[in-house]
Amino acid sequence: MPKVLNANIVKNLPWEDRKEGDFLPVWRYSQNPVIKRNVNRTIERTFNSGFVPFNGEFVGVFRGDTYTGIYKLFVGHSKDGIHFEISEEPIHFVDKDGNPLPDTRYSYDPRVVELEGSYYIIFADSNDEITVGLARTKDFKTFEKLEYPFPPNCRNGALFPRKINGKYMLLSRPSDNACSFFGNILISESKDLEYWGHHRLITRQGWANWNGVKCGGGPIPIETDEGWLVIVHGVLFNVNNYVYSMGALILDRDDPNKVLHKCENFLMTPQEIYEVTGHTPNVVFPTNVLVGEDGKLAIYYGAADCVTCLAFSTVDILFDYIKKHDCLKK
Amino acid sequence: MPKVLNANIVKNLPWEDRKEGDFLPVWRYSQNPVIKRNVNRTIERTFNSGFVPFNGEFVGVFRGDTYTGIYKLFVGHSKDGIHFEISEEPIHFVDKDGNPLPDTRYSYDPRVVELEGSYYIIFADSNDEITVGLARTKDFKTFEKLEYPFPPNCRNGALFPRKINGKYMLLSRPSDNACSFFGNILISESKDLEYWGHHRLITRQGWANWNGVKCGGGPIPIETDEGWLVIVHGVLFNVNNYVYSMGALILDRDDPNKVLHKCENFLMTPQEIYEVTGHTPNVVFPTNVLVGEDGKLAIYYGAADCVTCLAFSTVDILFDYIKKHDCLKK
Repeated sequence: MPKVLNANIVKNLPWEDRKEGDFLPVWRYSQNPVIKRNVNRTIERTFNSGFVPFNGEFVGVFRGDTYTGIYKLFVGHSKDGIHFEISEEPIHFVDKDGNPLPDTRYSYDPRVVELEGSYYIIFADSNDEITVGLARTKDFKTFEKLEYPFPPNCRNGALFPRKINGKYMLLSRPSDNACSFFGNILISESKDLEYWGHHRLITRQGWANWNGVKCGGGPIPIETDEGWLVIVHGVLFNVNNYVYSMGALILDRDDPNKVLHKCENFLMTPQEIYEVTGHTPNVVFPTNVLVGEDGKLAIYYGAADCVTCLAFSTVDILFDYIKKHDCLKK
Repeated sequence: MPKVLNANIVKNLPWEDRKEGDFLPVWRYSQNPVIKRNVNRTIERTFNSGFVPFNGEFVGVFRGDTYTGIYKLFVGHSKDGIHFEISEEPIHFVDKDGNPLPDTRYSYDPRVVELEGSYYIIFADSNDEITVGLARTKDFKTFEKLEYPFPPNCRNGALFPRKINGKYMLLSRPSDNACSFFGNILISESKDLEYWGHHRLITRQGWANWNGVKCGGGPIPIETDEGWLVIVHGVLFNVNNYVYSMGALILDRDDPNKVLHKCENFLMTPQEIYEVTGHTPNVVFPTNVLVGEDGKLAIYYGAADCVTCLAFSTVDILFDYIKKHDCLKK
């Protein structure tokens, strides 16, 4: 039974027990979607967003697709992790001296992690090219933008919640400047969050049917004494469209360049009407997991590029399922 | 009249004067191609290669496309910079301790620069993904491979021949994992050639008709008191095929993030039969320039992905032409 380590345990985690007889490793919240469309006067839809516990409550950094069609990042607050008050004004980043920076055209798919007393936002940032954006805040009011870790084109960054062997570690998914027909998971390291190197391939796409075209990091990795639990998205091209599923792998705790287990089964694939219909039909896209007591997991995911949803699992159930369906065992 | 600085002046530079009445800024060698096909028992064709003066003679690091169709790097030696003895065995890289590294599947389009007493080879390196490879040698016998500066996909790296403001500087052209339909020039910096950051866009494609689809760094930049002369390739998609031309821009000497001049005219476009026919018709692709006395330039370029060619110009002629056709002036 894997033990969660160094996690910010959320006491008031959103939660529903698995239904009697349900054999699936991840189960959906009965009240999905938790954030429906026409969110406020700026945002038409929000999905693929990042959430952290903050001062006993919850903060979300949201991808907000506005009524202009352009997408930016927005802050939202919640007491229960389900009902959010989301700002109508996007985040405007500042430089290290607090001077305003010009807005980029598109910012999207944020992940959030607490690291060394600050909260880091890792997102896709784009004018024409797309790359991994990195910003930090202490109060979710002022956001300092750091140097881009990589040249374009790259997205789906997920920063580890602590240094490993003295280095910050960052997952990413190199891409092209559009809806790439390829995508694998890379890990890179930095001594200072400013200069990055030692790029290593974690896994190529195609290790299972559901990630035949691409796979990429999702939520911030979760540390356990049996390794880092990494929830991923995987993409299949299925006659007419891309299909985005949720999957997982486990990385070595001391050397996360090393993959210990790779689950051949997806953890969840689009089924519900809010997942199979929408702007991008057939998408479940996990971007954030909160950890509660007893290894309980609240998994936030975007559905069909339209709405924000919740699903649940536990560390035990996931490790058990991943190991049972491990392609590296074969 | 710009003055060349810090260059390794080649006394026995390959050279032909411009013909009386020729008004073009770059003129071809009358004996092109200098390296024809069926090079030796391993290499069917060589092009897009790097050249440096070495011990009073010349060394080339060649892209060699072998009779298997796969391309690797090979070393060649020459007394005159025109007739080369090229090895039939590709370069096998070692790590910093001298241990052999596994060969990558494809290595190509090397540039070579002397920097702090070593020779650096900057090339495209690929298994499935493609990224900028970096290696160094002192003797062109043992080649130490350094960390990749960037995640895939990226190519057309050109390392500056000295540190600027205490940082190593590297041009690159982010790409996809195939024959990208986009490409712009980026500059990145490093304190140690191991970790890279501060990625800045130098120019997007499309600043002139001939680089409407992509443009990328070519040879190692040449330092003058009026700025860094950067020869580039630019690509147009012209009904049926990509057309690769040679162009140029000039970067600020102390802050190469800043573009001073951008030439709207190409310097050379495919015309000769060995440029307009071949495996990739309509390609002139500059990868190396040697500097002689009085600002004389010997420009090595690949033609039609088949043969190695030479062209000539002078620093005076190029600066004059670039400034006369400067799009930034308008």
